Amino acid sequence: MSRVAVVGGGIIGLSIAAELLRRGADVTVYDPAPDGADGAWHVAAGMLAPGGESAFEYPHLTRLLEAGHELWPEFVAGLGDVGYDRAGTLSLALTADDVAEAAREWKHQKLTPLTGSQVRDLEPGISPRVRAGAFAAEEHQVDPRRVVAALRERLTGRVVTRRVADLSDVEGDAVVVAAGHHTGGLTGLPVRPVKGQVLRLRGEPGLLRHVIDGAADGRHVYLVPRADGEIVVGATQEERGDRQPTAGGVHDLLRAALDLVPGLADHELSEVTVGHRPGTPDNAPILGFLDDDRRVVVAAGHFRNGILLAPITARLIADLVVTGSADPILDAFAPGRFR
Amino acid sequence: MSRVAVVGGGIIGLSIAAELLRRGADVTVYDPAPDGADGAWHVAAGMLAPGGESAFEYPHLTRLLEAGHELWPEFVAGLGDVGYDRAGTLSLALTADDVAEAAREWKHQKLTPLTGSQVRDLEPGISPRVRAGAFAAEEHQVDPRRVVAALRERLTGRVVTRRVADLSDVEGDAVVVAAGHHTGGLTGLPVRPVKGQVLRLRGEPGLLRHVIDGAADGRHVYLVPRADGEIVVGATQEERGDRQPTAGGVHDLLRAALDLVPGLADHELSEVTVGHRPGTPDNAPILGFLDDDRRVVVAAGHFRNGILLAPITARLIADLVVTGSADPILDAFAPGRFR
Repeated sequence: MSRVAVVGGGIIGLSIAAELLRRGADVTVYDPAPDGADGAWHVAAGMLAPGGESAFEYPHLTRLLEAGHELWPEFVAGLGDVGYDRAGTLSLALTADDVAEAAREWKHQKLTPLTGSQVRDLEPGISPRVRAGAFAAEEHQVDPRRVVAALRERLTGRVVTRRVADLSDVEGDAVVVAAGHHTGGLTGLPVRPVKGQVLRLRGEPGLLRHVIDGAADGRHVYLVPRADGEIVVGATQEERGDRQPTAGGVHDLLRAALDLVPGLADHELSEVTVGHRPGTPDNAPILGFLDDDRRVVVAAGHFRNGILLAPITARLIADLVVTGSADPILDAFAPGRFR
Repeated sequence: MSRVAVVGGGIIGLSIAAELLRRGADVTVYDPAPDGADGAWHVAAGMLAPGGESAFEYPHLTRLLEAGHELWPEFVAGLGDVGYDRAGTLSLALTADDVAEAAREWKHQKLTPLTGSQVRDLEPGISPRVRAGAFAAEEHQVDPRRVVAALRERLTGRVVTRRVADLSDVEGDAVVVAAGHHTGGLTGLPVRPVKGQVLRLRGEPGLLRHVIDGAADGRHVYLVPRADGEIVVGATQEERGDRQPTAGGVHDLLRAALDLVPGLADHELSEVTVGHRPGTPDNAPILGFLDDDRRVVVAAGHFRNGILLAPITARLIADLVVTGSADPILDAFAPGRFR
């Protein structure tokens, strides 16, 4: 079986590598810091929301997100306990203006609006000031750090700590570039870092049972409660490549979180992290052969959907590497659209 | 000359030890973690404000604070550059309610109220929403971390990493207990930890020239700008002994800081720290012989005034150890008042 090099040991690269390994390929993953401090997955909350607004005007992306969402039960079945949780997501709107904005999104997603008291019946920790909400039963969560740990376990001995500066330095019959926002520098494709600041709070488990995705006085925030009492609070979205948390970013997240769930005030602020989503000009991923020689395959630019799309990306890219022909669903995501 | 043991390597213990060393004593300082992660000085902003409200109803404390304040120029003269800065402090009030509360304090301190635009003439970074202020020329600042580093330099070879659990384990003709909130456990005196959360921001130097001490919609905050672009933002005051920063504490500090100085939003949030002020029942320090055998001297319980009072504490306690007789100013601070 062929030798495949995967450049990038984040959730996309590891998922692809694990799938290729399962199919009998001789896989090696290269990453400069495989323990993750630089990975978007290390910061990501792990919301699995196929109907999110990022796909609002992109039907082909919506199709990919929905198809990817369906793969998750099977994907996690082989990984053990990675915090996959299908309790669903409560979308919240604090003020009348927030309700007006959210109502469009709820309509688009065909969700039934709930009153404030209906929302609090589902989730008693929500502020009495919250005016309305909607329940998205199909929006789930997973813990990306645990997914990556499980994938790395499967790939023991196959992850090499090395920074790849030039693809011609990488040996292999095929080379998969899954280097997140670093993919731009390796391929010339327009993948850029989109900074996100994310907090982790910690308290007694049980304050929240559902993922919360809310707007509070124009500030958007999501709260992703883990079973162990950790609550991930995200995220800013900034067109910057630096790694510094800022006073304004942390403030906005905390303020919105506390406006929606006042009981979080006594939770420990246990982590302040910064990551970079790999953005593209159309915010859809880049999936396919880099050029005509077909040695290099790109799997990057997943922007806000890298966790959700990891299983389907793994399947589609493994198909491409093994068979040499692309599933038609990939047509809309080919690197060639930016050339 | 006599052998003196100082229990506690914070700013109080080190200042006393350095003064005793200068007078020829054979001094040893004991601290379980002399690099400071546990020290209140490591968290403290270093405002030198003798007129602060903590002394409002305690004339003897006010006298001590004022006498201590006067010693600072001489104290720092021997320490090198420790960030001692006499630009003064701007007191700010955001809302009408904040003005009403601040006005009493300004009157007490005999400060002239300024309009919002007068305040912004002094400090252009202040929000146009700030209604009023006052300038306290005599409220200075110093960087406590640099003071401690300079004192430790002087005491090279005399600071021992050791946790003292019982004073009878400590050798010395005299034992000075300067163990902050741990003094309670060592002496039986009522010294308790009063938690404070403090942030450090970092940006281009020059956004602020003065210390800011303000109220924003009922939230109190101070901003202490260092020459290198660091701005210390403090502080919560909580009757707790834990070491966890909280969502609510960090939020309140950031919100008040950004309300007063919006340009801080892009500053890096470079540190989130928690310290414990050593509180006493009357919030005044405990200074003097522990009991009749006169071997143990207490210098603790400085609450919010530990930095300001370090030089005068050093002088008074060194006098006491060397001469055996107490300056009359110490009468009001004797340990015996709690027995």
